Amino acid sequence: MNAFLITIGDEILIGQVVNTNAAYIGEKLSELGVDVIGSSVLPDDENAIRNEFERAFNNSDLVLVTGGLGPTHDDVTRKVIVDFFDTELVMNQDVLNDIKKLFESRGRQLTKINEEQALVPKIAVPIRNSRGTAPGIWIEKENKIFIAMPGVPYEMHLMMESFVIPKLKDLMGDSKKIVLRKNLLTTGLPESHLYERLGDLKELLGEVKMAFLPNQFGVRLRITVEDDNEESAKSRIEAIEQKIRTKIGKYIYGKDDETLESVVAKLLTDRGLTLAVAESCTGGYVAHRLTNISGSSKFLERGVVAYSNAAKVELLKVDEDVISKYGAVSIEVARQMAEGVKSISGTDIGLSVTGIMGPTGATPDKPVGLVYIGICDDTICTAKEFRFGDDRHLNKDRASQAALDMIRRNLLGIPYDD
Amino acid sequence: MNAFLITIGDEILIGQVVNTNAAYIGEKLSELGVDVIGSSVLPDDENAIRNEFERAFNNSDLVLVTGGLGPTHDDVTRKVIVDFFDTELVMNQDVLNDIKKLFESRGRQLTKINEEQALVPKIAVPIRNSRGTAPGIWIEKENKIFIAMPGVPYEMHLMMESFVIPKLKDLMGDSKKIVLRKNLLTTGLPESHLYERLGDLKELLGEVKMAFLPNQFGVRLRITVEDDNEESAKSRIEAIEQKIRTKIGKYIYGKDDETLESVVAKLLTDRGLTLAVAESCTGGYVAHRLTNISGSSKFLERGVVAYSNAAKVELLKVDEDVISKYGAVSIEVARQMAEGVKSISGTDIGLSVTGIMGPTGATPDKPVGLVYIGICDDTICTAKEFRFGDDRHLNKDRASQAALDMIRRNLLGIPYDD
Repeated sequence: MNAFLITIGDEILIGQVVNTNAAYIGEKLSELGVDVIGSSVLPDDENAIRNEFERAFNNSDLVLVTGGLGPTHDDVTRKVIVDFFDTELVMNQDVLNDIKKLFESRGRQLTKINEEQALVPKIAVPIRNSRGTAPGIWIEKENKIFIAMPGVPYEMHLMMESFVIPKLKDLMGDSKKIVLRKNLLTTGLPESHLYERLGDLKELLGEVKMAFLPNQFGVRLRITVEDDNEESAKSRIEAIEQKIRTKIGKYIYGKDDETLESVVAKLLTDRGLTLAVAESCTGGYVAHRLTNISGSSKFLERGVVAYSNAAKVELLKVDEDVISKYGAVSIEVARQMAEGVKSISGTDIGLSVTGIMGPTGATPDKPVGLVYIGICDDTICTAKEFRFGDDRHLNKDRASQAALDMIRRNLLGIPYDD
Repeated sequence: MNAFLITIGDEILIGQVVNTNAAYIGEKLSELGVDVIGSSVLPDDENAIRNEFERAFNNSDLVLVTGGLGPTHDDVTRKVIVDFFDTELVMNQDVLNDIKKLFESRGRQLTKINEEQALVPKIAVPIRNSRGTAPGIWIEKENKIFIAMPGVPYEMHLMMESFVIPKLKDLMGDSKKIVLRKNLLTTGLPESHLYERLGDLKELLGEVKMAFLPNQFGVRLRITVEDDNEESAKSRIEAIEQKIRTKIGKYIYGKDDETLESVVAKLLTDRGLTLAVAESCTGGYVAHRLTNISGSSKFLERGVVAYSNAAKVELLKVDEDVISKYGAVSIEVARQMAEGVKSISGTDIGLSVTGIMGPTGATPDKPVGLVYIGICDDTICTAKEFRFGDDRHLNKDRASQAALDMIRRNLLGIPYDD
């Protein structure tokens, strides 16, 4: 089965609202094995919507529309549906009762325009809405399915979960094709280098598809397998994953929804190890990412944002002379910061970051983007130089990622150098 | 001028990535007075892309494409452009130099596929890319404009800001309709309360449009005026803004692209004041947000992420007995943390956050979402209780926002209560 998604609303086109609905629906349909072949966003304009319904209904098995079902003047979706399917609106008593109940529970008066929300196209099955007043619309015609839902995300989500997905599953039965996906998350090597190290992709992948999805945190490799059989799909993905791991395994820190902080948190927690973090240029971002993980108090003893030299000396016992001699952004200071934070907190690992995030702060021999990351455990204290770019925010992202990856490498015994 | 946006990438269709690029571009074009008449998302499929180029180019003055310009096998946009415009690829020396410089600055080897990124359609003007290897493409033909940019947001943003927007402005000249927007950024009061305090919106706004855009950091009020005349548009927006400010002024911390951290940073810098931050539950997030602002070293002396009780006692001199008596999440500990961090760092202001972010850590009398924020200046030390929700990430967002707002209120002499 293939599907086309239509999102209706000026607010999406002018960028006032990001289209998370299409992403949500795309993900749910893909999980069902439905091919999402396209997606469009339309203004609140009857003609544009009518034309797009026609185009989408002609070209796909399933058309899924969100938005424009509300009670105000700019909500025209239901009207266009009635016209497009050449049907009429009829009052649906169940929906009307839902709406009455909703208003009762909120202690509010029911108005005429609220009641009119219970008018449903005759040809349609209404999709009940316990979180709002506009019902969804399910129409089957010419062996195709047309679905319309409100654009309010939490109303739409519930309709998808409780009605649309189960019903689609039923209809697809056993006939559905299996689409399995796995994402391998890498960091530390740019896209082009990963690409080269993987060698001939045709040879590596065969019929399996793989996409490279880069951002400032690393490159996600998305592997997609289509198969009639779930077991076979799984083993094909696993075989590819093994081949990839032999080539670039050390750069792969996790899979799918994992984050580098969640992986590091799990490693530390599983081993019962504790960590303290001393940050200069990342300004608390490494600690923030780690404390995004529930349970981080088990391993993160403390963090120090040693932004001033005084803080580095007073809190982290960095040698003032070393700062004067090498500068606060130096491999020596990074090492001392890591050592200092480990020693004052009594943790198993000390981590430090110092660098120049930009746009100011550069010197002739120390450009914006220069970062040193230090790490100490009970046996060794070391630091590594990184060179990132010229954007402050991206540099913080990259430096925090590199710092977390130093912990991962430390715990897994992967050398820090490339 | 009207425009059609095309986003290319399977990852968008299957919901792995939310289409923020279309939102960003839609917003920028709307600000220019360009009508965005539609937007679509396509798979990495040459035929589908070719057909959509045709449809979009026939129906609009400006076609703006993102995605599929990278160096790997699934990046097919450039190929389809060459085919669609019946042109050929030529090596562009300037772009090649950009790429070489980029790799040099990162200390990485240039590969053949990197070099091939400098091949540009002969008919096009390349849009230089200082943040990545793929140049953008600008084509003018039949009085229409066709633009393609990489899908990596930070690369595309820079191309928009430095090339596309200025060039479009030039081309549009004085002919364009004036659409002025202003965003007033509020925090501390929920949407429905703001709505009530603003009273009758029709009376307030007249012909001017306003949208309420809430998220966990606050509510953005977006005012939109259309006019033939820029001066008149400006004065109409100003008049509305003044009316709004008289009703809810103290909740408005900034406008448009400002952030609460940028506003606080400016206030501190302008007054030559210094700040130290002691964080428990926000785990470094407040310091991270402040250090996102270039020049933050002028006012942020240090931060302490006192996650453990030991860190609170050792680094911040919080009284152990007070922790035992009231618990680490208490108004007393918040006050002592703020006092402690101010005193050890010798700053003008000390700020602290302690709370329960969830999902674990609640007790019968201390639910998830309970947060205390402390603030000390040279005259007074105080703390305030907040109750947020049950989601860890949203709670960190809300707590960091409330903490920054405490500084803003302190500096502007706005009472902390309500």
